[in-house]
Amino acid sequence: MSEATGDIGLIGLAVMGQNLILNAADHGYTVVAYNRTVSKVDHFLENEAKGKSIIGAHSIQELCANLKRPRRIILLVKAGDAVDNFINQLLPFLEKGDIIIDGGNSHFPDSNRRYEELKQKDILFVGSGVSGGEEGARYGPSIMPGGHPDAWPHIKEIFQDISAKSDGEACCDWVGEAGSGHYVKMVHNGIEYGDMQLICEAYDLLKRGAGFTNREIGEVFARWNTGVLDSFLVEITRDILLYEDVDGVSLVEKILDTAGQKGTGKWTATNALDLGMPVTLIGEAVFSRCLSAIKEERVRASATLEGPTPQFDGNKQEFVDQLEQALYASKIISYSQGFMLMREAAKEYNWNLDNAAIALMWRGGCIIRSVFLAEITKAYRENPELENLLFHPFFNQAISKAQAPWRQIVSKSTLWGIPTPAFATALSFYDGYRSARLPANLLQAQRDYFGAHTFRVLPEFVSETLPKDTNIHVNWTGRGGNISATTYDA
Amino acid sequence: MSEATGDIGLIGLAVMGQNLILNAADHGYTVVAYNRTVSKVDHFLENEAKGKSIIGAHSIQELCANLKRPRRIILLVKAGDAVDNFINQLLPFLEKGDIIIDGGNSHFPDSNRRYEELKQKDILFVGSGVSGGEEGARYGPSIMPGGHPDAWPHIKEIFQDISAKSDGEACCDWVGEAGSGHYVKMVHNGIEYGDMQLICEAYDLLKRGAGFTNREIGEVFARWNTGVLDSFLVEITRDILLYEDVDGVSLVEKILDTAGQKGTGKWTATNALDLGMPVTLIGEAVFSRCLSAIKEERVRASATLEGPTPQFDGNKQEFVDQLEQALYASKIISYSQGFMLMREAAKEYNWNLDNAAIALMWRGGCIIRSVFLAEITKAYRENPELENLLFHPFFNQAISKAQAPWRQIVSKSTLWGIPTPAFATALSFYDGYRSARLPANLLQAQRDYFGAHTFRVLPEFVSETLPKDTNIHVNWTGRGGNISATTYDA
Repeated sequence: MSEATGDIGLIGLAVMGQNLILNAADHGYTVVAYNRTVSKVDHFLENEAKGKSIIGAHSIQELCANLKRPRRIILLVKAGDAVDNFINQLLPFLEKGDIIIDGGNSHFPDSNRRYEELKQKDILFVGSGVSGGEEGARYGPSIMPGGHPDAWPHIKEIFQDISAKSDGEACCDWVGEAGSGHYVKMVHNGIEYGDMQLICEAYDLLKRGAGFTNREIGEVFARWNTGVLDSFLVEITRDILLYEDVDGVSLVEKILDTAGQKGTGKWTATNALDLGMPVTLIGEAVFSRCLSAIKEERVRASATLEGPTPQFDGNKQEFVDQLEQALYASKIISYSQGFMLMREAAKEYNWNLDNAAIALMWRGGCIIRSVFLAEITKAYRENPELENLLFHPFFNQAISKAQAPWRQIVSKSTLWGIPTPAFATALSFYDGYRSARLPANLLQAQRDYFGAHTFRVLPEFVSETLPKDTNIHVNWTGRGGNISATTYDA
Repeated sequence: MSEATGDIGLIGLAVMGQNLILNAADHGYTVVAYNRTVSKVDHFLENEAKGKSIIGAHSIQELCANLKRPRRIILLVKAGDAVDNFINQLLPFLEKGDIIIDGGNSHFPDSNRRYEELKQKDILFVGSGVSGGEEGARYGPSIMPGGHPDAWPHIKEIFQDISAKSDGEACCDWVGEAGSGHYVKMVHNGIEYGDMQLICEAYDLLKRGAGFTNREIGEVFARWNTGVLDSFLVEITRDILLYEDVDGVSLVEKILDTAGQKGTGKWTATNALDLGMPVTLIGEAVFSRCLSAIKEERVRASATLEGPTPQFDGNKQEFVDQLEQALYASKIISYSQGFMLMREAAKEYNWNLDNAAIALMWRGGCIIRSVFLAEITKAYRENPELENLLFHPFFNQAISKAQAPWRQIVSKSTLWGIPTPAFATALSFYDGYRSARLPANLLQAQRDYFGAHTFRVLPEFVSETLPKDTNIHVNWTGRGGNISATTYDA
């Protein structure tokens, strides 16, 4: 048998897989391509892959035989059982030190499990987030690999070559152990949900609130894309709003308003609940997609539930400028919440996450890429121990400047009857976060009243009857017992 | 051995267990009490239980020997392993047809599992929500039993006897199969989180916004407790706000503002995400507790993040009336969301849930008991097929009347810088729910643009190029491929 020439193998020839292969081939790597439906391999080789350094494999065995050692094999298949199935098919043909990279949208607990299972077999598992859609995969995605650290030296060069670049730096770096790569990708996707929801709310306010045409809104997004909001999602929103169907009607107006989702936003929200971090904006973004999905019920509700009719009589440019600030401020909150979540995850799962590297990975190639992320990278490079983005002078000043117009927008949409759940929850979070005292004292009193759950006293009110660092129960009515709820909790 | 005289057994002598035993004894039942730490049994018998029809058991065997058949045994122990441990300890002493009732705050998937496991052993498992805190357990809680239907005839009488009564009807009825009893209790607790958060926001607005003293706020709640908001939680809030410490200072002002939680609200929010139902108010209530918990970070944030200073110059009574309407409307939304979730759960888990019975069970005895729930009971009795509470004339009119002042309150708090995440999300939901068209069309266009996720067309725009009921992909830029994302989703 002749010597293996393949630098990297890739399983799964759907859109992302094909484009990633072409991308790697463009960078001079020899890629071995395999797909479960083998005819797809031939079709790919005869068409898109023709004339490139791409070898077709018609079996797993052939794939493995064609790869240099340690073998590097990327799976780009549907998350779930398919990943485990391919891993099991690969194992008989792999050797100690070979590397399996799951580049799909796997849930991080699955990656934790696969990492452990393969470690037992001396196979190095990498769970890697890949973001950027078709375009990104083809011309440079954001890549977020985590898993067995011994794998990194073997995949670093190729991963950083094929990844997006931002100011000359690769948007790919080592995230951390076990499932941390997929975790960071999950948070990325959650933030993506949030960004998209914020843009939709801005669009809705311009359309239903201020009465702009889609062309006008497209021009607003075009302008925003030259300022602080400069980002991929704002750019494509501009394109979409300016895209006309064959009949000259804006195509977006013809699209059914029921949002799909594949669960990664939901994973982030659920994880936030699990870790007890108030990632409210992503939560609202996910719920907004759920609400959009019950379209028929909404149509029935629209016939029976009353609301105001928006009346716009202000200055259009002023409104657009206020809205830009509201969107920017909400975005700052969303990313702050995302980094708060990752801070907690690093503690909980014992990972060492580098915030500056994460921000850099998201800086280019991926769906949430933006100028904004360059500022986040800068902030965390300046101060890797930064407790919260909101404490950094840049974001602190940005949000201070934005807060007045932001309040105007949320107030206006409230009075207009146009839902802005993401703008509003971001502002509520901001006001709650900057409240040294929240009304949770009353809540604790209620819990103690009805369930003897006890409370603690504020430092300035410590007394003989209200001792420091003590769980205190008060008999609020004189009727209840004096047993505090230590064992049974209802 | 003499004939067994115990009507019902109870394991776990924490506050809820003791009170439930005393309650059952007051109703003429002979209760056999057992606790893992046996000295607690003796102490209880010598004190609270003295002279009542309560038998102490010093072992599981003794407990079982003292019970009539079929044995009825309530577990009131910490949710989790303790429940499984006691079940395993009980099994050797039980016979076919005996009934184990878990009255703790178990997570419904655990109850589903226990139901199945015990069914194999011919033991009838019941997972029963019990709500009402110490007081409720002692004088009549709300009881929500579900599980093996054969158990119901054997426990119906005693459960309905010891439960709360509302207008002569027991606040206890059969919920459904498997874990449905604990599911409905979980939703109850989620709604309880929401109600408490709404009350806290109202308190905060009166305090920080309108500058009321705690005594004045207590009087507001006293008045509200005679109107549409008449409820246990409003009543105890009144008591709490009027409760003065020995030095004459309002005790609630001395309580540390970090809210505890035991996870049942989180379970509801997570389940809502799993079932794809927009239960936003409970979500925000849970996140608000999370935000309250990071007190020290908030204190640091308060020193650096800017906000307005609330200025109240309106009519106090008018403000209080607006706030009452805002609280009422938000509460209607929260319960509508809760029943939407249960509607979806019934579909998903194949349970037959009776909404009127659920509302009646919550009508008395439990933490969320209120006059309001009588209206919900009535609405579902009038029309068991009611799609949504908001479609019933009573709630429809109530929210129509409330919406203008509700908007004023949310708008005002936004401008004041006082966080009202629950009020605001309820209003956003209301405005989204009554929107026949939401901006999710743009979101679908974005997803198709970057990920080829496809979209569907609105019925009125169906054409040859935009066919009905078809997943459509458009090449928005002319640059991307034409492969839609069917297999791999990124």
